[in-house]
Amino acid sequence: MGPLYFDFNATTPVLPEVLEAMLPYLRDGFGNPGSGHLWGLRAREAVDRARAQTAGLIGADPEELIFTSCATESNCTALYGAFEDVISARLAVSAVEHPSVLEPAGYLKAQGIDLDILPVDNQGVVGLEAAKALIKPETRLVSVMLANNETGAIQPVAEIARAARRAGALVHSDAAQACGKIPVDVDALGVDLLTLAGHKLYAPKGVGALYLRRGTPLAPLLRGGGQERGLRSGTENVAQIVGLGAACELAARDLDQEMARQRRIGRVLLEGIEGLGREFMVMSGDAAKLPNTLNVGFKGLAADRLVEALALDQVGVSAGAACHSGGAVLSPVLAAMAAPIEYAAGALRLSWGRTTDLDGAKELLKRLARALEAAGPRT
Amino acid sequence: MGPLYFDFNATTPVLPEVLEAMLPYLRDGFGNPGSGHLWGLRAREAVDRARAQTAGLIGADPEELIFTSCATESNCTALYGAFEDVISARLAVSAVEHPSVLEPAGYLKAQGIDLDILPVDNQGVVGLEAAKALIKPETRLVSVMLANNETGAIQPVAEIARAARRAGALVHSDAAQACGKIPVDVDALGVDLLTLAGHKLYAPKGVGALYLRRGTPLAPLLRGGGQERGLRSGTENVAQIVGLGAACELAARDLDQEMARQRRIGRVLLEGIEGLGREFMVMSGDAAKLPNTLNVGFKGLAADRLVEALALDQVGVSAGAACHSGGAVLSPVLAAMAAPIEYAAGALRLSWGRTTDLDGAKELLKRLARALEAAGPRT
Repeated sequence: MGPLYFDFNATTPVLPEVLEAMLPYLRDGFGNPGSGHLWGLRAREAVDRARAQTAGLIGADPEELIFTSCATESNCTALYGAFEDVISARLAVSAVEHPSVLEPAGYLKAQGIDLDILPVDNQGVVGLEAAKALIKPETRLVSVMLANNETGAIQPVAEIARAARRAGALVHSDAAQACGKIPVDVDALGVDLLTLAGHKLYAPKGVGALYLRRGTPLAPLLRGGGQERGLRSGTENVAQIVGLGAACELAARDLDQEMARQRRIGRVLLEGIEGLGREFMVMSGDAAKLPNTLNVGFKGLAADRLVEALALDQVGVSAGAACHSGGAVLSPVLAAMAAPIEYAAGALRLSWGRTTDLDGAKELLKRLARALEAAGPRT
Repeated sequence: MGPLYFDFNATTPVLPEVLEAMLPYLRDGFGNPGSGHLWGLRAREAVDRARAQTAGLIGADPEELIFTSCATESNCTALYGAFEDVISARLAVSAVEHPSVLEPAGYLKAQGIDLDILPVDNQGVVGLEAAKALIKPETRLVSVMLANNETGAIQPVAEIARAARRAGALVHSDAAQACGKIPVDVDALGVDLLTLAGHKLYAPKGVGALYLRRGTPLAPLLRGGGQERGLRSGTENVAQIVGLGAACELAARDLDQEMARQRRIGRVLLEGIEGLGREFMVMSGDAAKLPNTLNVGFKGLAADRLVEALALDQVGVSAGAACHSGGAVLSPVLAAMAAPIEYAAGALRLSWGRTTDLDGAKELLKRLARALEAAGPRT
């Protein structure tokens, strides 16, 4: 068996059906949706269709969605946009957010916004009581991700949103890792803003979306020609928007089946790891988790070495979020959940997806066994 | 003959060679450049190569270039980034900038930055003496586009940059319409920041770049995972970045030949229009212009009607920048250059490119003659 990719939370392949949907817009259908002639109209129609497909995945109306270039842009737009021209207000974000929430939050803090960090328990789940205590009448925005990229832990967004809305705050959820993997419904969640990423659900990199509940005030981040109802200027990235729409439609269609199938792969992996005779712990072990993510910490081992050994054996896994690669040894997420250092330092994130099968999972277990042997003797 | 596209300044088709270069990264080469395994390394290598190709087109070093999602993002990053945390300073932009410069400039003005508008003459060219008088010691940034999107007029960026740098200001140039059409060299221009757009030079929509001279201070617009040396967070849009690189390499290779060929098409169009027996004027007629742009105002006619008549005859042209479509009758550019209203109201922007040939130009003239007949009798 050849290369084994188990890093779907870093990025997913583009599904062939998605690429097929995109290709016409990288060939003859190249028009600018802002043009009134037939090239423009064809492109406009494609963007409109993709908007409906994307909105459909999250239970939104198409007109509540703007397309962006990535989840980072969606998150930055949500956070900066909510605090535009505000001098005094509070922002609350969870301790395990992606850097594209934490960094803008830190920037806003430097500008004078009061920042509250919602703590997580040792399963990496935001504590509801602590969150409620920190959400105050001055809180303008609460941002809590729907599923964590490193552990897969699903956060109690609906419950936090209820508390936040009672306090008069807006609610944003970074659902980049959740959309396409678990059911996401903006009304059931009760969020005002929600971030969606293309390249986490089999659309290409370079496209994302931001859900914006009707009537939610938001200042644009990119100003210019007034595209996306003035909320995101810049010529629409037609081909990739089409890809995002197609990917969302496929995700919605196959969600139940893929969730069950991917959970099965997860069980096979966990059982296999239990059979390797190593001390380990599953990060966020007791929490509800994404069906495609298993973050497993091997006691006394260094994750970097394991990742490297696996890479040499043509296995792609991650020791944390991909964009942290080369960064700190212990990820901020594992640190925030106070994971025991002797396990956390050896934590591998395995994440799989639509193109993974059981044979691949079994082969991964073999190669993991070899990598563990190379990393050190059994204790 | 079928549809005739003469709206290359709104957007260009993706060249087949560009799409070919991209496809591997929409298939097997889908990795996240932030990942340390082979999928990631392959993607990282592709981004590095594209950075060198893109930098090569503008005489920059690869490490002076960051990739963005579009020219609008590049422009917003340049303008906002230069005024980050600055409370008191001046910004100077030309009167004929694209909305993605004018709108951020207006926003900065609303935040307390003093804004100077550099006026243009009736050819749509920024006046050098007026510009020099308006660039003051407090001026922090001067932003003047290299070529205007509507008239094709080339601006005296090098001369303005010299004056600006003498005054201690940074210089930004939006070269979205210039790159790939005329020689662009960041050192010859003497600019600190320069914007480049993918979809104006046969790469896809959804990718752009910002040149940043070594040592130029700039705050990021998108914060998060720290990609692009911390200046533009967000997972790299690998396939489209590869497309941008390929397009830049092709543009550099064929620049001289295409300039000559496209100028010839322009002469044929102008001669043909002279033979139509209508009163008209060429906007920016005496200015140095892009080889692919002809903005021609037909006296007493309404541009919208002409565009519509041509659209029905399967011709794509524009009455202004595409993103203004449905907006004001008289474009802000034509207004700023005080174009005579009886001509400006009937102004068509014809723009052509690499896939246009002389037969296409001749056919355009025939259809234009029909559209003019329909629009009103000869005077």
